[in-house]
Amino acid sequence: MSVQSRDPRTGQVNGEVPDSPPEAVDAAVSAAAAAAPRLAAVAPGVRAGWLRALADALEENRQRLATLADRETALGEERLGGEVTRTANQLRHYAAVAEEGSYLEATIDHGGEGSPDLRRVNVPLGPVAVFGASNFPFAFGVLGNDTASALAAGCPVVAKAHPAHPLLCTELRDLAVAALTGAGAPEGTYEVVHGFAAGERLVLHPAISAVAFTGSQSGGLALWRLAASRDVVIPVYAEMGTVNPLVVTPGAARKRGAEIASGFVSSYTLGMGQFCTKPGLFLAPAGAGLVEAVAGALRSAAPRGWLLTEAIAEAYASGVERLAAAGARVVARVDAPEAGWAAAPALLSVTVADLTGKPELLTECFGPVALACEYADLDELRAVLAVLPGSLAAAVHAELEEEELFTELVSTLSRTAGRVVVDGYPTGVVVGWAQQHGGPWPATTMPQTTSVGAHALDRFVRPVAYQNAPDQVLPPPLRDGNPWRLPRRVNGRLVPAAEGER
Amino acid sequence: MSVQSRDPRTGQVNGEVPDSPPEAVDAAVSAAAAAAPRLAAVAPGVRAGWLRALADALEENRQRLATLADRETALGEERLGGEVTRTANQLRHYAAVAEEGSYLEATIDHGGEGSPDLRRVNVPLGPVAVFGASNFPFAFGVLGNDTASALAAGCPVVAKAHPAHPLLCTELRDLAVAALTGAGAPEGTYEVVHGFAAGERLVLHPAISAVAFTGSQSGGLALWRLAASRDVVIPVYAEMGTVNPLVVTPGAARKRGAEIASGFVSSYTLGMGQFCTKPGLFLAPAGAGLVEAVAGALRSAAPRGWLLTEAIAEAYASGVERLAAAGARVVARVDAPEAGWAAAPALLSVTVADLTGKPELLTECFGPVALACEYADLDELRAVLAVLPGSLAAAVHAELEEEELFTELVSTLSRTAGRVVVDGYPTGVVVGWAQQHGGPWPATTMPQTTSVGAHALDRFVRPVAYQNAPDQVLPPPLRDGNPWRLPRRVNGRLVPAAEGER
Repeated sequence: MSVQSRDPRTGQVNGEVPDSPPEAVDAAVSAAAAAAPRLAAVAPGVRAGWLRALADALEENRQRLATLADRETALGEERLGGEVTRTANQLRHYAAVAEEGSYLEATIDHGGEGSPDLRRVNVPLGPVAVFGASNFPFAFGVLGNDTASALAAGCPVVAKAHPAHPLLCTELRDLAVAALTGAGAPEGTYEVVHGFAAGERLVLHPAISAVAFTGSQSGGLALWRLAASRDVVIPVYAEMGTVNPLVVTPGAARKRGAEIASGFVSSYTLGMGQFCTKPGLFLAPAGAGLVEAVAGALRSAAPRGWLLTEAIAEAYASGVERLAAAGARVVARVDAPEAGWAAAPALLSVTVADLTGKPELLTECFGPVALACEYADLDELRAVLAVLPGSLAAAVHAELEEEELFTELVSTLSRTAGRVVVDGYPTGVVVGWAQQHGGPWPATTMPQTTSVGAHALDRFVRPVAYQNAPDQVLPPPLRDGNPWRLPRRVNGRLVPAAEGER
Repeated sequence: MSVQSRDPRTGQVNGEVPDSPPEAVDAAVSAAAAAAPRLAAVAPGVRAGWLRALADALEENRQRLATLADRETALGEERLGGEVTRTANQLRHYAAVAEEGSYLEATIDHGGEGSPDLRRVNVPLGPVAVFGASNFPFAFGVLGNDTASALAAGCPVVAKAHPAHPLLCTELRDLAVAALTGAGAPEGTYEVVHGFAAGERLVLHPAISAVAFTGSQSGGLALWRLAASRDVVIPVYAEMGTVNPLVVTPGAARKRGAEIASGFVSSYTLGMGQFCTKPGLFLAPAGAGLVEAVAGALRSAAPRGWLLTEAIAEAYASGVERLAAAGARVVARVDAPEAGWAAAPALLSVTVADLTGKPELLTECFGPVALACEYADLDELRAVLAVLPGSLAAAVHAELEEEELFTELVSTLSRTAGRVVVDGYPTGVVVGWAQQHGGPWPATTMPQTTSVGAHALDRFVRPVAYQNAPDQVLPPPLRDGNPWRLPRRVNGRLVPAAEGER
């Protein structure tokens, strides 16, 4: 068995990559398990150096990688080149977060008066299986946020290549292994395997301690169920596509309806709608003409492009049919290219009654389609918001003169979304300390976690407490002398790392 | 249907409590759901006041509660009175942790240069179902760590009463509702339901957002599976009994073998062995006479008592038989009282070959029994440690002269345990900032979390990010003026709350 690489623009075969046999999967996991204690033992700053070397290697090969990725994804060399840079910067961000050291949550209670000396620190879980996404071959791929944050936290990674871009995954694997070992990382720190069976074997391997996944509901939940069947169940951090709502208030519709309509079209058709943060549901006041404005903006933008794989193109076509069968009406549709896995971007409209009564309208259709719904009054809007399932993000466009409604909407949307965007669009996920990428079920299997931003490391550690342990047998983060210069909590009080010492 | 309260010393009926009908469960959850936004909206310091009022009410009723609990559990009034005080202090600890505010992880990235203003804070999950334990009717019961940390984090609680002490649960419910509402908490903040069916209904109720459980593997995993069958899956934080190993090195055996043997007996028979942190496996060097010393200490201590319920007493008897059938040999056993649900404390010995080859020897037997195993050399010890499943705690007794071995053992045990105790015993779980109560699967369903100590609150919140939101629509923790005086991270830098301002 092997995975074929094909060009979405033509369907032609670029090449193929053989599936990893079971022995190769086992060898990769064994090497990762052997490397795990060594990754865990070094100071975070050492691992940060490895990640920075990897970031540099990516940027040095930016053009070559973008060209290769474009042949497999048709996402365009410019966008893909930008994504390489973004991915390098992500690696540097996670390096800095590891180095800063707060993720270790080093905590010391000195005890006394009958209480023991108790010290707690986060330790790496061990080898992590990463399932990269189709739609961001770099930023959410085999070297994306999951891999970067797992390595930063001290966990070796065995990544499963995505069949949408197997040649790129092979290339990234070679580049990463060379850069990491060149920077001093132990053998087994990183590996890539190919094929569906290899992915299943990874999840079931006793030495794998966590799974990170970015992709569809069906894929993520299948891995989650598989991991739950293990003797020793392990966490599955699946970040999955959702219908992300965008609400326009009456005030915003009056003041800048046309601008919002065109911004919405740009956002939901960006990358041919292949974003997990695509705003898939547009909620606007009736009578403001916004649905017509969105339709007009779509026709005039007339985005043209291809979807990533044949399966995605087929799922898009049948997904639009499914929405229509559930009562959605096609308001606008633009022509698609003739060849390859093209998709026709579309805008559909639905009634409040259908939206609140038919849950199938609120399941993601991956690709350049959105639903628009007009609410007659705020009670109708509230009725829709009350039935929304969990989503990665939500957006609200409102005016400060509507402060009460504005506050209500931000609060209501925060109950079902992981990120609430004001006067903007959810596509575009900044990598920083304050990011949250992950929302209530079914946006993620673990809504308490994020797959992007500083707290992404938290997924790959667990706390251990040491009671009355002498200094010399404690791990460095908990020793009296604080050799790693970490911010710590001592007897309940936060003690920032001395800035000059780090 | 109803739950009978019975006296473990005699089996006689104390009284009975009717099962909560489905309507009562639904009413409790609806009231909790209605209260949830109000709990979430108040400053943590306000909720801290409610918890302190509850703590005071417990202490004011200490003697009465201990007497009632003793009739249902036979744990002794002195121990139970101490547990009331401990429970009150727990409530005060979680109040202080909420007030300190770090659990909110308020984070602000001001953005600029094309990046948005992004702010992230933890919000309460919503109503939590708490399943209290049998063995600590106060500290891990319906007003125990789970309830206290959930309320502190801003989540209403509907607790399922434990059938081992239904009268006490009813009493605690009335006391808590009066104290909480008296302190200003909204109606619906806390409720207790009774009966097996009520517990299942709770877990499946759409408005319940998380489950916390303390008890057996079978009970915890049943709830975990039930929650996984929901349309919207919710987290189940189950803290479950495990076999907690205690390792004695050759040096420690030589220097203080007798002292360790008697300390071990005190620990594993404490509360008739009904501790989830009971040290259930004693690993000592062969030829040092430690197993004989433990047997002697058991015979001379001759602990006498009862188990909590008829079912637990039966499970203990059959559990000891199961261990014997798997090859464990009874080394010492002391007589049990004749009446009631008495148990005969016992010490069993096993060989390294059996221990490493028969996983059934490494499953918990709840009650006053422990396995002792002598290792011929360090390779045998390592072989045993390599097969240990996840545990809540582990202990090591070693000498500083053995530094290399000492360090190795602390490190090895930290891979399978949540807490490593040095020169002590795992029973006794201090409630503080540095505590970790929860270990790798199957000690807990979520090894990344703790059910005791400051970080217990983390289980009941999830992060939400706000992008480009104007100050007036942000929740208070993220506003520029920091009205709740929280420690925050601003542009990547930790900013402790100004001490004088809080």
